[in-house]
Amino acid sequence: MNNRITKLFGIKYPIIQGGMIWCSGAKLAAAVSNAGGLGLIGAGSMYPDILRGHIKKCKILTDKPFGVNLPLLMGDAEEKINIIIEEGVKIIFTSAGSPKKWTPFLKENGLKVVHIVAASKHGIKCEVAGVDAIVAEGFEAGGHNGREETTTMCLIPKITQEVNIPIIAAGGIGSGRAMAAAFALGAEAVQIGSLFAASKESSAHKNFKQKIIESKEGETLLMLKKLAPVRLLSNAFSFEVFEQESGGASKDELKELLGKARAKRGMFEGDLLEGELEIGQVSSMIDNLKSAGEIVEEVWKEFQDVLEQLPYN
Amino acid sequence: MNNRITKLFGIKYPIIQGGMIWCSGAKLAAAVSNAGGLGLIGAGSMYPDILRGHIKKCKILTDKPFGVNLPLLMGDAEEKINIIIEEGVKIIFTSAGSPKKWTPFLKENGLKVVHIVAASKHGIKCEVAGVDAIVAEGFEAGGHNGREETTTMCLIPKITQEVNIPIIAAGGIGSGRAMAAAFALGAEAVQIGSLFAASKESSAHKNFKQKIIESKEGETLLMLKKLAPVRLLSNAFSFEVFEQESGGASKDELKELLGKARAKRGMFEGDLLEGELEIGQVSSMIDNLKSAGEIVEEVWKEFQDVLEQLPYN
Repeated sequence: MNNRITKLFGIKYPIIQGGMIWCSGAKLAAAVSNAGGLGLIGAGSMYPDILRGHIKKCKILTDKPFGVNLPLLMGDAEEKINIIIEEGVKIIFTSAGSPKKWTPFLKENGLKVVHIVAASKHGIKCEVAGVDAIVAEGFEAGGHNGREETTTMCLIPKITQEVNIPIIAAGGIGSGRAMAAAFALGAEAVQIGSLFAASKESSAHKNFKQKIIESKEGETLLMLKKLAPVRLLSNAFSFEVFEQESGGASKDELKELLGKARAKRGMFEGDLLEGELEIGQVSSMIDNLKSAGEIVEEVWKEFQDVLEQLPYN
Repeated sequence: MNNRITKLFGIKYPIIQGGMIWCSGAKLAAAVSNAGGLGLIGAGSMYPDILRGHIKKCKILTDKPFGVNLPLLMGDAEEKINIIIEEGVKIIFTSAGSPKKWTPFLKENGLKVVHIVAASKHGIKCEVAGVDAIVAEGFEAGGHNGREETTTMCLIPKITQEVNIPIIAAGGIGSGRAMAAAFALGAEAVQIGSLFAASKESSAHKNFKQKIIESKEGETLLMLKKLAPVRLLSNAFSFEVFEQESGGASKDELKELLGKARAKRGMFEGDLLEGELEIGQVSSMIDNLKSAGEIVEEVWKEFQDVLEQLPYN
């Protein structure tokens, strides 16, 4: 495989591990990069000094390219950007914010910049801002998500019609079969979250990984739409959100219900009842704990097999 | 193309036109069948005698196979089933109800039976009930939809793992590109709704067709979840639903808001403000009025082109 994405990052397989809060530290990112994909450190749940530590560690664990995922709207984004540059990271995936503000500065500092969107109109803004590639993430993805609720199947053909830079499909990529579908839709790579959240090298709590493995179809829902839409796995907390939302709870009431550190409590500390458990719809396809390297190899092999078996080859 | 679906129905292309209320009478069904796909008469919005008239007309308009889509939960389902059998229809797509009750009777009467589901667990029930194929319809589809909110990208790989009968993918199939993706996911055919709802031969009101053509990304949402989830195009009515749902309206309040004949008013009579406009997310990809035959040919050509261009051919 040799396409615009593998060339852009200097990687073997166009498989990118999503930079997820509480799941993706140096260990996971390095494992994915060592397996030939692109690993990302998820900076969203890290204090700046913790992020620096993970970057330093990742440089020791792999000599392959890796990157950092950074939500731009957080108060410490600038501090983290400086750390990313100081530590010589070459790839950044930005989200939750406009690509306009930071993209030129990041590119001047030698970084490849990818921005994450959930709608084509935001894709056009990314292209204008000069990013190198776009992650287009569908409704089925875990964690924070677009208000348009556009699914991967509808988003990828639309955005590839409207922009010229390469598209990385995210949301619903739980197998090589789905990766092949993403390529048919026009993507040149995939970003996978849930499979890696449940991997051996993920820093998620073992309770959360087990809960993902046991989860069934229909057990995630996009919730908290009055705040910021987020896909959650069913538990006591999500049931309470559902009840309050059905009853017409206001933004402020939902904020109070959410409280602070709810995601850390669920995903990192393993409180399966009261924690916030962010995961994608593909969680129902995950049925055992694998290493990140096994995931990369299995997805890649199935991707090739599926493409070979399609008609009109 | 020669696979289990083309053989089952005796059709040239594995492209099925969804049997939609207020859009798909004899004219549309015959046009699709004449173009080499499978046309379906949508019985859901027809009185029994009207259905009989459409079947008779369809037999005149085409000598190719066609079928009828029938929601099983409606009070006149049995009467319509008898008409379908009397008129010698050979293919039925059933939905909204259990496949268990009617499938044996329909098969004894020489019909090929397909049931529509939105979750794998219902797919397993279909296989046990003896249906010949399953339509697996994702969250992005127009009209009535599953409570699981599973997207086509997640639903198709899951259901093809769990059942052995052929799967027809629906929801988000707005192009040959999406059809190729559906095949990569494991489907052996696609069912297309929105493109045909906006076709020349659709019996939808011209105002509704024009509204579909003008619609943009993110302008449909799955609503009325407390009643039966349905994907609607944005208008004054859907805004009122959104406001009431956000405010915690009860099932009864939503029923009252919906009232009677709201879908007919929107889709058939062309009231774009107060009517219910059922359409899929792919509506944003539709930008001009085509004939059903053009749609079949364009989807089929793009499907082949995309498969030929994929790597590992």
